[in-house]
Amino acid sequence: MSQLFTINHSDKNTSARTGVLHTDHGDIPTPCFMPVGTHGAVKTQSSKEIVELPSSILLSNTYHLYLRPGTEVIKKAGGLHSFMNWQGSILTDSGGFQIFSLEGYRKITEDGVTFRSHLDGSEHHFTPEKIVDIQRIIGSDFMMMLDLCPPGDADHETWIDALNTTTKWAKRGMKHFRETEPIYGYRQVLIPVVQGGTDKKLRKKSAEELCELEADAYAIGGLAVGEPKSEMLETVEWMDEFLPEDKPRYLMGVGTPADLVENVSRGVDMFDCVMPTRNARNGQLFTIDGKINIRNAKFKTDFSPIDENAISPMSKIYTKAYLHHLFKTEEILGYRIATQHNLYFYILLMKTMREEIQKETFGSWSNIFLTRYNQRS
Amino acid sequence: MSQLFTINHSDKNTSARTGVLHTDHGDIPTPCFMPVGTHGAVKTQSSKEIVELPSSILLSNTYHLYLRPGTEVIKKAGGLHSFMNWQGSILTDSGGFQIFSLEGYRKITEDGVTFRSHLDGSEHHFTPEKIVDIQRIIGSDFMMMLDLCPPGDADHETWIDALNTTTKWAKRGMKHFRETEPIYGYRQVLIPVVQGGTDKKLRKKSAEELCELEADAYAIGGLAVGEPKSEMLETVEWMDEFLPEDKPRYLMGVGTPADLVENVSRGVDMFDCVMPTRNARNGQLFTIDGKINIRNAKFKTDFSPIDENAISPMSKIYTKAYLHHLFKTEEILGYRIATQHNLYFYILLMKTMREEIQKETFGSWSNIFLTRYNQRS
Repeated sequence: MSQLFTINHSDKNTSARTGVLHTDHGDIPTPCFMPVGTHGAVKTQSSKEIVELPSSILLSNTYHLYLRPGTEVIKKAGGLHSFMNWQGSILTDSGGFQIFSLEGYRKITEDGVTFRSHLDGSEHHFTPEKIVDIQRIIGSDFMMMLDLCPPGDADHETWIDALNTTTKWAKRGMKHFRETEPIYGYRQVLIPVVQGGTDKKLRKKSAEELCELEADAYAIGGLAVGEPKSEMLETVEWMDEFLPEDKPRYLMGVGTPADLVENVSRGVDMFDCVMPTRNARNGQLFTIDGKINIRNAKFKTDFSPIDENAISPMSKIYTKAYLHHLFKTEEILGYRIATQHNLYFYILLMKTMREEIQKETFGSWSNIFLTRYNQRS
Repeated sequence: MSQLFTINHSDKNTSARTGVLHTDHGDIPTPCFMPVGTHGAVKTQSSKEIVELPSSILLSNTYHLYLRPGTEVIKKAGGLHSFMNWQGSILTDSGGFQIFSLEGYRKITEDGVTFRSHLDGSEHHFTPEKIVDIQRIIGSDFMMMLDLCPPGDADHETWIDALNTTTKWAKRGMKHFRETEPIYGYRQVLIPVVQGGTDKKLRKKSAEELCELEADAYAIGGLAVGEPKSEMLETVEWMDEFLPEDKPRYLMGVGTPADLVENVSRGVDMFDCVMPTRNARNGQLFTIDGKINIRNAKFKTDFSPIDENAISPMSKIYTKAYLHHLFKTEEILGYRIATQHNLYFYILLMKTMREEIQKETFGSWSNIFLTRYNQRS
């Protein structure tokens, strides 16, 4: 089997590096940002528009797809790629995070987690093995292990328990993964999730235990769940130390444009976050000078593009004033333009970082970027 | 000034005809259907997608645009074409119909109509002259007169009053139109609206009075407001008799696919209706075999295209099963696909009718179409 990950260039002054993820659905230059399509669709965007951003990978959610449309439909469709007509790569989150965030009933045992659907209250049981099976049916290129992610303010004992369970589940998940085959003929990679909160010893323990599994990629979970930003960054720094250098690192659910820059600098290769799509629906747009809200009255007669420095296909043809009007009249076209702009901004930011790393100018560039971006944010 | 309307072919057995509307924003083959973009955006669709349907004309609403974004913004943008980045033609309805349908305060006098905004309760006054002025600022290729449209169940006296007011307003509107110039340098046409309900004498009177104005096009108003379908069709037949043959006829707010066929047969050249866009948001799709609702459980594993006979750009790549899933999960992409499909279906239907008229097979074709379409609708 061909190599999953090639590192092209490692920055001399930071832990930033460029590389390529090789999947059977194409190559993905890293560091990369993965647009989020929880239900098998990136909010308001067509598959074609995601390709044109350009993005060659998107993220979906095992738990949500399991409930709707269900594995039977996805299997009949020939997998999620075919169902949503997406030729690029797909990473599916396990949905463990969503299940543990459910307000309603859920019960965690040694075996797995029992929960009620947030849609109809029906009871379901997920095990590390079942999560692999579902993702075999979905056919994601990158499958996530079932992990246990406590809330950011959980106590030390809870973090230790979560870590131990996560390790046990990861061993079972990896065993089952290695005993099963992809359904659709192309390679799938199973990614364990390092837990341990913001405790260095726990993070080290979790990383060491999961590294024994010799997975092809590693995810950093349990961050961006309410902890101070400085602690998140410090934790990612430790992970840079504890995780194998030659394998891709995926920082789950992070973050703002500034977060992406800070964490690329700390050696992260893959990101996902709902922020560009979710904030777009509230009229919040990312620009190189920080965030703006297009609903603000000052944009009523501003006929300039959304961001002169990040011209998405749609912001090439529509002005701030028109977008302001669309938000005021609640026209869906407004959400489309805003979503595309924000995704484009994120994707362009990743591309810029790859170029700066390649040119050995990442350190100075990131200082300038962060100063300019944070000034107004 | 070049001729507005050319008739290419008149059907021997019906009143159907093909032609071309020549505007400074391009030629529009008739009979045509105009997608509705009330607030300066066709629901969920970009201007580019409207071009690709293909449609070279769309409809917007003077009343709605006057309230939001307001004439000041539109003037600064250089007109609606520029504001919404639309290179095709635009017809703007006066919005009189919307004002008279307002639940709240409105007062009709000889001079015009005073009403409160449905948005903030502010008071406004529209006159036939002011409606022309606003549409000069909007810069629509086809401007509609301010007319008075009573509800479908209004009594005879009300219809007579409405007709008389409509005529008086039309005279004032046309005078003001002829005394003013387009702001943006291209031709604008002002269209009077024939009223008179479903009363033949009143329709004749209205048509005769308005024909004296020698307008370049005529609209048939006051239909599709609750009257029986047979009376609507009979009324349009009279209009065919009373309106000048060489000028385009626009039937306002009509209708279903079957209505379009029936009224093309009765000599109508231009149509608009919210049905394809509005129904799409409820999951209702038009197909050659009648309407279907994509939310229906039977589509859960139906991996066929929406309509084998009307493959819009998006239904080329997405299946019924995926669209069903998008509606179940309330993904906006679903509304986009459904809206595009319905508009595509309407536009394709008009194209088919033009071809059948040209081939002298319109009569037999329309019988087959109506039988097949009505069987399931």
